[in-house]
Amino acid sequence: MFKNGWGIDIEFPLLDRRTKPRNIGLTMVLDKGLGIGETTDLLETSGEHIDFLKLSFGTSALYSPHVLHKKINLVRSYEVDIYPGGTFLEVALLQGKLDQFLYRAKELGFTCIEVSDGTIEMEKETRKEVIFKAVDLGFRVLTEVGKKDANEKCLVDEMVKQLNEDLENGAYRVIIEARESGTVGVYNSAGDTDLEAFEKILRGAPNPDVIIWEAPLKKQQVHLIKTLGNNVNLGNIPTGEILALEALRNGLRGDTFKDTLTRFSKNFL
Amino acid sequence: MFKNGWGIDIEFPLLDRRTKPRNIGLTMVLDKGLGIGETTDLLETSGEHIDFLKLSFGTSALYSPHVLHKKINLVRSYEVDIYPGGTFLEVALLQGKLDQFLYRAKELGFTCIEVSDGTIEMEKETRKEVIFKAVDLGFRVLTEVGKKDANEKCLVDEMVKQLNEDLENGAYRVIIEARESGTVGVYNSAGDTDLEAFEKILRGAPNPDVIIWEAPLKKQQVHLIKTLGNNVNLGNIPTGEILALEALRNGLRGDTFKDTLTRFSKNFL
Amino acid sequence: MFKNGWGIDIEFPLLDRRTKPRNIGLTMVLDKGLGIGETTDLLETSGEHIDFLKLSFGTSALYSPHVLHKKINLVRSYEVDIYPGGTFLEVALLQGKLDQFLYRAKELGFTCIEVSDGTIEMEKETRKEVIFKAVDLGFRVLTEVGKKDANEKCLVDEMVKQLNEDLENGAYRVIIEARESGTVGVYNSAGDTDLEAFEKILRGAPNPDVIIWEAPLKKQQVHLIKTLGNNVNLGNIPTGEILALEALRNGLRGDTFKDTLTRFSKNFL
Repeated sequence: MFKNGWGIDIEFPLLDRRTKPRNIGLTMVLDKGLGIGETTDLLETSGEHIDFLKLSFGTSALYSPHVLHKKINLVRSYEVDIYPGGTFLEVALLQGKLDQFLYRAKELGFTCIEVSDGTIEMEKETRKEVIFKAVDLGFRVLTEVGKKDANEKCLVDEMVKQLNEDLENGAYRVIIEARESGTVGVYNSAGDTDLEAFEKILRGAPNPDVIIWEAPLKKQQVHLIKTLGNNVNLGNIPTGEILALEALRNGLRGDTFKDTLTRFSKNFL
Repeated sequence: MFKNGWGIDIEFPLLDRRTKPRNIGLTMVLDKGLGIGETTDLLETSGEHIDFLKLSFGTSALYSPHVLHKKINLVRSYEVDIYPGGTFLEVALLQGKLDQFLYRAKELGFTCIEVSDGTIEMEKETRKEVIFKAVDLGFRVLTEVGKKDANEKCLVDEMVKQLNEDLENGAYRVIIEARESGTVGVYNSAGDTDLEAFEKILRGAPNPDVIIWEAPLKKQQVHLIKTLGNNVNLGNIPTGEILALEALRNGLRGDTFKDTLTRFSKNFL
Repeated sequence: MFKNGWGIDIEFPLLDRRTKPRNIGLTMVLDKGLGIGETTDLLETSGEHIDFLKLSFGTSALYSPHVLHKKINLVRSYEVDIYPGGTFLEVALLQGKLDQFLYRAKELGFTCIEVSDGTIEMEKETRKEVIFKAVDLGFRVLTEVGKKDANEKCLVDEMVKQLNEDLENGAYRVIIEARESGTVGVYNSAGDTDLEAFEKILRGAPNPDVIIWEAPLKKQQVHLIKTLGNNVNLGNIPTGEILALEALRNGLRGDTFKDTLTRFSKNFL
C-alpha cells in the first residue's frame, strides 16, 4: 500500500488502493502538450500514481523530434506507459501506412498503442490485424470502443461485442470513449452517466477490470469509484488532476471520505 | 503600494491595494499538486501577490517526502504561508491522531493549520481544543465554516455562531467554504451568490476582514471586490489565476476598471 | 509545410497549413501569467505554432521587472510577437500617459501593441493617433473591436466601420473581441456563434485574412476552421491548448479529421 508521504501512522479512509506495478486501479492521463519541465514536475509529483500517458489525438505528430524523444524517455523512466492518441493511428491507417506507423512508434520508444475507430470506419478483420501486428511488435495494446461524434450514436450492443473481440484478439484493456470533454459514450452532453448504457457495458464485459473508463470530470470519477471501487480503471484524467483523483481514490477528499465515516470510531482527541 | 512592474508613472485604477506583509487583502491559493518547477514559476511571478498556499484536500499525504519537503521550504522562502487541506486533519482527527498530525506538520515546516468540519461532525469542545493546540504549537490557524455536500445544508446562523467562536478561540481568519467548484456555501449550483446568506454572514461577523471568502470563479471575485473593496480576503484561487485576480484587484481588467472610469479625467493624448 | 515530428511519410488530413513566418493562419495566445519555466516549455513544445503572445489585460504591470524582462526576451527568441493586453494601454491613455507607455513598451522589448476600447470610450481621432504613434515607433499594431461588457452591445455595423478605418490607419490585423470566456462579440453567453453578426463582419471586411477571431472555446475554433479554412487567424487561445488547436488545424483531431475522410482512399493495410 502507498505509504502516506508524511511518514506518520494515519490510515487512508478508502483501503486497499493498489500501488504500481498493478493491473487494476489504472490511471491514464490525457497529455495535450506538456513541455519537458512540466512533464518532469508531473512525474516527480505524481509518477507513482500514473500508469498510462497518452499524447492526445494527433498531437505527437506536432512535437519537434527532439522534444518528442526526450519526453518519451522521461516518461518511461518513471515506469509509465506512453502512447500516441488513437486518432493518429487512424490517419496512418487510412493512408495505408500502418506498418510504417508501428515501426516508427517502436523506434521512438512508445510502449503502447491505442487502436480506435473514433472517426474512421474499420472492418473487423482490419481491427484484428492491427491489434495482432502491434502485439507482435511488443506493444501493450489498448483498444477503444465508441464514437467521437455525439450524433453518430454507437450502439451499446456493438460496443460490448467489439470489447470482447478485442480482448480475445490480444488487447490488454478496452477504453470506453468519452472524449476530453466527457460528453459522449456513456455520458450525455452534460457529462452525466447514462446508467442503462453503463450497466449494459459492465454486464457484457468478462469482468470490470478489463475496462478503462474515460472519466475526465470529477463527478464521473466519483460515480465510478463509488460504484466499482477505488481500483476502477480511469482514463482521460487531465494532467492537473492526478493528485486530486488519487485523493478521491484514497478517501482523502470529501466526496469519497464521507462514505467511509461509519468505518471509523470517533476517537477524536 | 505595489509599484507597477514597468517602472513608469501610471496609477492603477483601483487605489490602495495593500502589499505584503498585510493583514487584509489576503489571497489564498488552492494548489492541487504543482511540482517544484511549477511552484518556482508561480512564486517568481506571483509570490508577491500570494499570502496562503493550501495543498488541497488530502493531497499532501500523496507527495513523496522528498518533494513535500522541498516544496514547503520553497513556498516559505517567499514568505507565503503553507498548510495542508482541512480534510486531512479531519481524517487524522477521526483516528485519534490529532497530536501526531500537528507535531508532524510542525516538523515538516507547515506554518498554518486549517480546522474544518466539511465532512465529519465535530463537537464544539473538540473544535476549540484543536484550535488551542494548533495555536500553542505556533501555527497560524484558519478555520472553515460550511459543508462540502450541497445536500447537507449548513444553516447560516450556525456558520455565523461558529465563526465568532473560532475567532474567540484564537483563529486568525475564518474561511467560508465554497469548494474548488464554487458551488456550495453562499453560492448556488451555478456559482451565483445567495445574497441573503452572504449579507447575513457579513452582518454576523465582528468585521469583514476576519473572513476569507472562497471564490474560485471570476464572477464571484468580481462581486466580492465590487461589494467589499479590492482588499477583500479571497480563497481557493486556482494557481493559474493569481495575476488575473490581482489585475481585478487593481482595476487592470475590464470588469473592475470600468467602475473607476469617472475617477479619471479623460486626458488621452 | 510543417513536417510531422515522427519523421515519417504520413500526410496530415487538412492540407496546406501555413508554417512560420506567415501572414495567415495566425495563432494568438492568451498568457495569464506563465513563469519562466512554463514559458520555456510552451515555446520549446509549441513555439513553431504560435505567432502572438498577449500578456492578458493589465497583468504585465504586475510582473517584477526582472521576470518581465526575461520573459519578453525569451518569447522573442522564438520569433513570437509579444504585447501587453489592450486594457493596460486604455489605463495609460486615460491618464494622458500614452507616450510614456509606448516608449517604455519599446524599451522593454515588446514588439506589438494592441489598441482597444473594450472598456473606455475613445474618439476616432484619438484611436487613429494611437495607431499612428505605435506604427511610427516600429510596433506591429493589432487593434480590437467590440466591448467587454455583454450588456454594452457593440453594434456590428460600428465594428465593421472601425475595422476598416483601423486597417487604413495602419493596423496589421483587427481582433474581434470575445474575452477569455468566449461569451461576447459574435458569441452569446453560451459561447455559440451569432451567425448573422459573424457573416456581417466577414462581408464587411476587405478580406477574411485581416481578422483575428478570438476563439477560446474548442467549438468556436472548430466552427471557424470549418467555415474559413485551417489558416483562419485565431486568438485568445489558452496556453494549454496550442497543440490541441494545431491538431484541429491539421485534421489530426476527430472534429476536423472527419470532414476529410472522403479525400482518402481507404487503403488500410
